[in-house]
Amino acid sequence: MVGMSFIAVDIGGTQLRAASYPSNSNRPIKELKIPTTHEGETVFDRVVALIESIWPDEAVEAIGAALPGPVDPYKGIILAAPNIQEWKNFPIADKLVDQFHVPVYVDNDANLACLAEWQFGAGIGHQHVLYLTISTGIGGGVISDSQILHGQRGLAAEVGHMMIDPDGPACGCGGIGHVESFANGPSITRYVREQIALGIPTTLSSSSELTAKRIAKAAEEGDELAQSAFARAGSYLGMAIANYLVLYDPSIIILGGGVTQAGDLLIEPLKQSLKERVLHPRYLEGLVITKAALGDEAGLLGALALVKMKTQTQ
Amino acid sequence: MVGMSFIAVDIGGTQLRAASYPSNSNRPIKELKIPTTHEGETVFDRVVALIESIWPDEAVEAIGAALPGPVDPYKGIILAAPNIQEWKNFPIADKLVDQFHVPVYVDNDANLACLAEWQFGAGIGHQHVLYLTISTGIGGGVISDSQILHGQRGLAAEVGHMMIDPDGPACGCGGIGHVESFANGPSITRYVREQIALGIPTTLSSSSELTAKRIAKAAEEGDELAQSAFARAGSYLGMAIANYLVLYDPSIIILGGGVTQAGDLLIEPLKQSLKERVLHPRYLEGLVITKAALGDEAGLLGALALVKMKTQTQ
Repeated sequence: MVGMSFIAVDIGGTQLRAASYPSNSNRPIKELKIPTTHEGETVFDRVVALIESIWPDEAVEAIGAALPGPVDPYKGIILAAPNIQEWKNFPIADKLVDQFHVPVYVDNDANLACLAEWQFGAGIGHQHVLYLTISTGIGGGVISDSQILHGQRGLAAEVGHMMIDPDGPACGCGGIGHVESFANGPSITRYVREQIALGIPTTLSSSSELTAKRIAKAAEEGDELAQSAFARAGSYLGMAIANYLVLYDPSIIILGGGVTQAGDLLIEPLKQSLKERVLHPRYLEGLVITKAALGDEAGLLGALALVKMKTQTQ
Repeated sequence: MVGMSFIAVDIGGTQLRAASYPSNSNRPIKELKIPTTHEGETVFDRVVALIESIWPDEAVEAIGAALPGPVDPYKGIILAAPNIQEWKNFPIADKLVDQFHVPVYVDNDANLACLAEWQFGAGIGHQHVLYLTISTGIGGGVISDSQILHGQRGLAAEVGHMMIDPDGPACGCGGIGHVESFANGPSITRYVREQIALGIPTTLSSSSELTAKRIAKAAEEGDELAQSAFARAGSYLGMAIANYLVLYDPSIIILGGGVTQAGDLLIEPLKQSLKERVLHPRYLEGLVITKAALGDEAGLLGALALVKMKTQTQ
């Protein structure tokens, strides 16, 4: 394996990242980041150019890519990408194989962030991991018995779209009462706006600049409405996690994404609600609930973990 | 393998069943059924006597057992059994090994019914199976990538206790708004009683003899309240299945248990509700929704499938 290398690519709606790694280290040989779109170019051509620009001198064993949408990891197809209109059932793995003549492995970014946290981050040593990322949306991934839980077409573990209230608020996806519609960033700001409209006193104003981050700051400074907005989101997350426990029985829950920056404002109500809602206390015995360790690196490191796993076992 | 045999045991709250099988067939050599309890005897001693009484002339390679409650399949421990008070964290696998000196494999009855349907029943050929049994309770199991989904301690796939309404009815387990509390047999009779109390016309009477079976019969004969009771349960099951799809992405959903005997009265509203609630139509593409094939045999055949799997791979 000496002299071999891997390439990892993280394809996001706004930026593309790629890095090459020696086979024995997670420290990149070369790394580059560019905007996803540029007038007159396809996103695929930009991905190809990006990979070429970080291509190392060492022989490349395989390429791994994290993709921003539902992915069929068996066929290497991205089914849709919210910010890349041209990708509908796009066979990206085959297209990259044609271009670079090395094996290409792909998965969606939430599954790979879960894989990265498990291999390199907060989940090391566990075999059953639930990863949740809570920001504009709520996504996640599940490692079950040391394997990514994929289901028949890679569409499992869409944990943010589990319905927890049939009469709940509308979700960004068009559904009703999904976890995401109760606890993502926009639902926290929406709740604060509604309460302000009802005349609840607060230091916050219902301007267009109201964000979950700003609400978190007000909460830390003692604003009771701001605190209640995170307590509400945390309480719904606790209910959701009570469900994930009976459905997946993980030994660790890893929480990432901007909303979790609110820390105990969110996590304490989450734990309280989880304790009230959990089917049986045995699900909580030894359960670790912790913050994600890798931040923005999770996609790239997940793509790296994927190629490492695949080339070891095949 | 010629001349070898397996033993399967199905331990229920009211009866114990055991059978011995030749290694190359699912047709039992000997089979016996006895009540679970008998004054002056422990349930464990009755299980041992039952196994002795069906012990075949052929050498026994291994014993498999289906257990009525949460099970740690890794350690071979039954954590609790609703109708067997003496079994709390009971190391049944080790106790049976001490007795019979052959390997013993155990799992809970719902997981093993799922395994049986996958290996011998409605799920043959699939790799991602969701099995639901809807009767007095709602239980189930999941096969993901041809493995039983266990989680860290075998407590995954308790699908009946997924909460779908935070303000829903009380569940038998003490929880709130679980799938079971909306769609099991007792919730169907409870709904009919409530509607009768509200003065809704029906051919049914709110006597102590009101059962889901009786309601199904009235529904078939055109009773509108009875029909609406199954439509309501089916509608909640459809919501629940929309969740299971995004969480597990199975290629087949197998429905067993007495309540599913109502057939289309339940299944048509289920499908309608699923269609309305599913995150994306791609989850329904090629999805099979079908009835369980094995009925009461599922526990015993699941225990047989378990020993066959374990002795093949080890």
